[in-house]
Amino acid sequence: MARKYSLLKQTLASLCFILALYAIINTLISSTATLKLDRSFPFDIANSVMVSDELDSQETDFPNSSGKSVLPLKIYLYDVPTRFTFGVIENHGIARGGKTNGKITELKYPGHQHMAEWFLFSDLLRPESERVESAVVRVMDPEEADLFYVPFFSSLSLIVNPIRPAAGSNQQQRKLAYSDEETQKALMEWLEKQEYWKRNNGRDHVIIAQDPNALYKVIDMVKSSILLISDFGRLRSDQASLVKDVIIPYSHRINTYNGDIGIENRKTLLFFMGNRYRKEGGKIRDMLFNILEKERNVIIKHGTQSRENRRAATHGMHTSKFCLNPAGDTPSACRLFDSVVSLCVPVIVSDRIELPFEDVIDYSKIAVFFDSVSAVKPGFLVSKLRKISKQRILDYQREMKEVKRYFEYTNSNGTVNEIWRQVSQKLPLIKLMINREKRVIHREVDKPDCSCLCSNQTGIRARL
Amino acid sequence: MARKYSLLKQTLASLCFILALYAIINTLISSTATLKLDRSFPFDIANSVMVSDELDSQETDFPNSSGKSVLPLKIYLYDVPTRFTFGVIENHGIARGGKTNGKITELKYPGHQHMAEWFLFSDLLRPESERVESAVVRVMDPEEADLFYVPFFSSLSLIVNPIRPAAGSNQQQRKLAYSDEETQKALMEWLEKQEYWKRNNGRDHVIIAQDPNALYKVIDMVKSSILLISDFGRLRSDQASLVKDVIIPYSHRINTYNGDIGIENRKTLLFFMGNRYRKEGGKIRDMLFNILEKERNVIIKHGTQSRENRRAATHGMHTSKFCLNPAGDTPSACRLFDSVVSLCVPVIVSDRIELPFEDVIDYSKIAVFFDSVSAVKPGFLVSKLRKISKQRILDYQREMKEVKRYFEYTNSNGTVNEIWRQVSQKLPLIKLMINREKRVIHREVDKPDCSCLCSNQTGIRARL
Repeated sequence: MARKYSLLKQTLASLCFILALYAIINTLISSTATLKLDRSFPFDIANSVMVSDELDSQETDFPNSSGKSVLPLKIYLYDVPTRFTFGVIENHGIARGGKTNGKITELKYPGHQHMAEWFLFSDLLRPESERVESAVVRVMDPEEADLFYVPFFSSLSLIVNPIRPAAGSNQQQRKLAYSDEETQKALMEWLEKQEYWKRNNGRDHVIIAQDPNALYKVIDMVKSSILLISDFGRLRSDQASLVKDVIIPYSHRINTYNGDIGIENRKTLLFFMGNRYRKEGGKIRDMLFNILEKERNVIIKHGTQSRENRRAATHGMHTSKFCLNPAGDTPSACRLFDSVVSLCVPVIVSDRIELPFEDVIDYSKIAVFFDSVSAVKPGFLVSKLRKISKQRILDYQREMKEVKRYFEYTNSNGTVNEIWRQVSQKLPLIKLMINREKRVIHREVDKPDCSCLCSNQTGIRARL
Repeated sequence: MARKYSLLKQTLASLCFILALYAIINTLISSTATLKLDRSFPFDIANSVMVSDELDSQETDFPNSSGKSVLPLKIYLYDVPTRFTFGVIENHGIARGGKTNGKITELKYPGHQHMAEWFLFSDLLRPESERVESAVVRVMDPEEADLFYVPFFSSLSLIVNPIRPAAGSNQQQRKLAYSDEETQKALMEWLEKQEYWKRNNGRDHVIIAQDPNALYKVIDMVKSSILLISDFGRLRSDQASLVKDVIIPYSHRINTYNGDIGIENRKTLLFFMGNRYRKEGGKIRDMLFNILEKERNVIIKHGTQSRENRRAATHGMHTSKFCLNPAGDTPSACRLFDSVVSLCVPVIVSDRIELPFEDVIDYSKIAVFFDSVSAVKPGFLVSKLRKISKQRILDYQREMKEVKRYFEYTNSNGTVNEIWRQVSQKLPLIKLMINREKRVIHREVDKPDCSCLCSNQTGIRARL
């Protein structure tokens, strides 16, 4: 018995020794990885964007591939010339009468609805030790990469030159100072010199064009890449698709409603504040104004983006049961994400809208959809909304609370992580296409060789 | 010091205790899971197809979702009426003069090139404890399922009635005894009564149709499902695609070559044995016979499937450097997989071929591709092959050895696991489409709403 016990003790001791050894080796490997990453940091701007100092978190657990776990996708962040990133911020400032002083890489990215490009770039610049929950791991050697990220601030570039010139500035001078088109072209010239871009014609590259007009000049040259976009409003089906690309949310501009679900403090039935006059699908807005303006308990107001209007909109969205989301110039608009974080049930009137992360979010549980034809029938939309029970509204709100993290770019487990997860899901098909193109026999050149996933359309129906 | 040591001992002891507790709990959970699975086994045929007894492997590690690991996809195996599975085997036997005795569920599935349906079905019937490396876990409650597997033996059903009737049998009688078409229709009647089929119009269902003619009568009724197929030879682009479906390999009929790489024992340059006369794309075979028959060091022989011919083909493939793989009636043919397991470099002449698992296999590293136009130019193909260096052939062979497990259905980490992995990669897009269809506004009904991934075709090129 005593011998048996001693044997057990010995076995346990050996087990513990092995475990300790494993722990030590594991820690050593992790810290080596961290060191390697930090030392080969290609940007001299690293410190300005890092959330904290690099080496103080040594307990980092580099995701490893033991057992069932899946290796995160390896992404390479291109070290693009500064003009495509911080240079755009600088020019945006100059065009508004700002001055350049201090390090360009310490400039603050200006807040606007298409600032995903900033959040994704900053995320990849963070030390890997802070990115443990991410679906992508940044690699410093392009040879190891599954995908390549091109961090051009394409949406900010589009609005560097303000629609109305800053007071006292010479319009001609400003125009010469920055050109979005020239910057787009310069990016392509730079990209087309990159060995890894040429290798697969950009198919394994990720490019952000969140503003529907971003990259408009060169979009045909990047259409093989995985595009991060808001909708297909300006894109043809050969340029973008649900299969190849990722629909990403706008950055919400209204503060999150932090209260609980409930309708006691939401006396307004339906709220809308925004531009009444828009192009294309957005023409419906004027029609909706006409039929909704005089409805009881409905607030519908024309207003453009300004700090003051944003405050008014915040109040409206936080005190209404439903928030109207008509199409803008393109099918998507940032209001949807404002509505969700406000727990104001979105009423979507946009027949061609595409919605972010739809594999994990069932939008029929958080929003009400109307087709445009029905929505503009006098009385139709409002009478439908009035019939929705309190219970149902609470269900919508509960579900919105559940999914709103997906629309919060600053949430550590929010939009950024989800975008990378979506990107990583594209990899198998991208790899398949790359391998296939190496061996495929090119036949008729009259029509493209496409693989599709289709919806069977069986007729018109309004959802409620 | 002594106190410190004692503290360390105590800590180690605690650690061991926690570990032991974890191990015990883990084992208990695993065995409970196994028990639960076995008790609710819906087939009374369980024992006949299980590889070993259920409860003797207690160390089973149910895949769990700790840390980075990804939960395997949950699949529900439909408990279809026996006529769609073992009933097909029985009828296949009867049509060949066999007799029914003993339990129908003990019948052996007849070996043929389209027997993936058997391997997948048997795999799902195995206890989960034996399926730990699989990308899918079988669930007994359809409510939990991500996807649904319909285990109809569609390829065997197609060949139940032999082309040549068995000696002495009454042809009319046999025809009445089994009808593939009737069985296909009966399956659809059964499926369309299933709640989960109706829920998403079959989009989250997995159906196998490995023989290009399998399910021909009802294919339009199952086109929303994930199809497991050999190629797109009999399928329109609205019925199947690389995006929605999974290309699976034929079951090889030639024995694996177990020797090492090398060309010393491979004196023949190019080998082919098979049917000279085929329809459609396969018409190229006759042309290839004409130009290759008299070439030095080339063996090209007409022969149909028989045990004797298979033996001759095995010898040929094991002693040749290259094996010709022309299109058959459809672009794919089982010979490709025979070639790979024979380490005989495939020479593919089939312009529209699709290849299994192309995201993980770069076929340009294991095969030589010729477009049909070049391949039939006198002297062209053979002169290209003669120029391939010994080193290059060894590279092809090395790579084939590397990937051949993907083509071995009986390998425990082979084709079956890879098919499930491929199926599991389809899930995000399937879920997206299901959610999207719940809310989408159905617009024009004149053309389908499709998302595509396209290849840019830039001209003809032969690969070498």
